[in-house]
Amino acid sequence: MEKKKNISMAVIKRLPKYHRYLGELMNNDVDRISSKELSEKIGFTASQIRQDLNCFGDFGQQGYGYNVRELHGQISNILGLTKVYKTAIIGAGNIGQAIANYTRFEKLGFSLEAIFDVNPKVIGLRIRDVEIKDIDFLSDFLKENPIDIGIICVPSNNAQKVCDTLVKNGVKGIWNFAYVDLVVPEDVKVENVHLSDSLLTLSCLLTDIE
Amino acid sequence: MEKKKNISMAVIKRLPKYHRYLGELMNNDVDRISSKELSEKIGFTASQIRQDLNCFGDFGQQGYGYNVRELHGQISNILGLTKVYKTAIIGAGNIGQAIANYTRFEKLGFSLEAIFDVNPKVIGLRIRDVEIKDIDFLSDFLKENPIDIGIICVPSNNAQKVCDTLVKNGVKGIWNFAYVDLVVPEDVKVENVHLSDSLLTLSCLLTDIE
Repeated sequence: MEKKKNISMAVIKRLPKYHRYLGELMNNDVDRISSKELSEKIGFTASQIRQDLNCFGDFGQQGYGYNVRELHGQISNILGLTKVYKTAIIGAGNIGQAIANYTRFEKLGFSLEAIFDVNPKVIGLRIRDVEIKDIDFLSDFLKENPIDIGIICVPSNNAQKVCDTLVKNGVKGIWNFAYVDLVVPEDVKVENVHLSDSLLTLSCLLTDIE
Repeated sequence: MEKKKNISMAVIKRLPKYHRYLGELMNNDVDRISSKELSEKIGFTASQIRQDLNCFGDFGQQGYGYNVRELHGQISNILGLTKVYKTAIIGAGNIGQAIANYTRFEKLGFSLEAIFDVNPKVIGLRIRDVEIKDIDFLSDFLKENPIDIGIICVPSNNAQKVCDTLVKNGVKGIWNFAYVDLVVPEDVKVENVHLSDSLLTLSCLLTDIE
């Protein structure tokens, strides 16, 4: 399969949804699906679907549709789900704890190796068998235990500092919940979850209908 | 000011970021900023910024730049931040509690009126002075206390049912954290926070650099 150098960010953002719907179809023992049927389920137009899926190879066959299992497998490949990612959560506040308790991530191949916090009251506690460690040991830990993805759940004024420590110790993926835009070298990828932005998008949509 | 009927979803998604950066500039007593300076801070190109902000009026002046306070005020208007939104959280698990504890939302004008859960162990407890109520009383509550935004934090298999109850009782905005795409009438707006999709986007970006 070709590498996905030319796939746009817009397509990449849609891939997890394809992955989810195809997984559900597999669970319901559906073998094949046409772009039209998939369109009705997933809410993208059939032509959008054909265009998206054509980006990375010729999956569909005229008059046959897509082989659900094969397409799901290919999208898993493209999403990088054929390996296990070692993750660490930095910041064991509400959001950090919520993420730590999400078992779905584990099933997708994201293994939680460590949690760090600054608060003596939570250091030493465990979330799902993972001990919360003192953030002062973050650097030492990363040197001994390479981590693929650092999950930043600290207050925004500390986020860049934590990010710098992660990057300096070889972390290439940052999942950022702090409400700040992080500065990273080009080979480090950041995915932001900015909850306030999401809520403001909703209020913006609501003002339209008044 | 013109209504924002013709503003694309892509622009709407960028507005909260403008709002945040302009707010920071105001806090730092910056009165004016050029699209070029704003570009350096915010990471969009200057021409993108000019194009985005032209969508809803003529804010900038050649050779003068943008009046920070005025622009921030206008974007607040467009984002619908001139009113208070009454919100209710349904599902007081990890994510629900995390959202309930976010004080920033309150400051932006989103007032948390109620929290509901199905678990007898948490019903009656309080988060920031808001009592967790029995979900069986959701419908009755909504009839007496109109809510603008329902925040769905229940497991995905219950999300549509909760959503239907909200919609039936006049809720027009749904902030959905359940990992499912909700079906709603056209006049109801849904903003999803699908954390798994976000994490898969990151793993997809990471496979590129290997």
